[in-house]
Amino acid sequence: MSDQPVEAFEPPYYVAVFSTVRTEEQAGYPETNARMEEIVRDIPGFLGMDHAQNPGGLGISVAYFRDAESLTQWRTHTEHRAAQQRGREQWYESYTLHVGKVERSHSFKRA
Amino acid sequence: MSDQPVEAFEPPYYVAVFSTVRTEEQAGYPETNARMEEIVRDIPGFLGMDHAQNPGGLGISVAYFRDAESLTQWRTHTEHRAAQQRGREQWYESYTLHVGKVERSHSFKRA
Repeated sequence: MSDQPVEAFEPPYYVAVFSTVRTEEQAGYPETNARMEEIVRDIPGFLGMDHAQNPGGLGISVAYFRDAESLTQWRTHTEHRAAQQRGREQWYESYTLHVGKVERSHSFKRA
Repeated sequence: MSDQPVEAFEPPYYVAVFSTVRTEEQAGYPETNARMEEIVRDIPGFLGMDHAQNPGGLGISVAYFRDAESLTQWRTHTEHRAAQQRGREQWYESYTLHVGKVERSHSFKRA
């Protein structure tokens, strides 16, 4: 989550797009979110992540993984499973997850 | 660009994740951006789009297409090509584009 978008990686790799609208019940969210970031960064094959948030509105998190196995490891991590459950019970008004295999990518950076 | 994330579509479909940091030279950007939205919505096979923007920082636009052909039509549209060029010259400090084939998706909405 730096000020620059993560780079373009060498395809193929995996992308998980997680778009959310949150509720007003955000108790515990910041701590859990920080913990989830720690966990995902320790997953072998995790490549990077970007996040953007409209103030009071839609948020988009995009995480990149080397292969399907690393993404499965993230999806099924015990603490992540618990956070997903709590998210549905408390933090999220709505969300959509799209998981895809990246075929093409490129980056631009001003000289 | 509503207050709710676009739905999960029936896989396979395509996703284009465009993550940007903009420059301070934004003359013409809002008009071009509005025009690009008109154009993409007219592309047969365009499914939907989400956008989130950190104030003064990273922005993420995610567009969904039924197939590779519809995404190619969008990528190569004459006005879009011109906007891409102007973006590199003027509006973008940096960006990354990731194009993938969605294999799995789901949505959640609070009852």
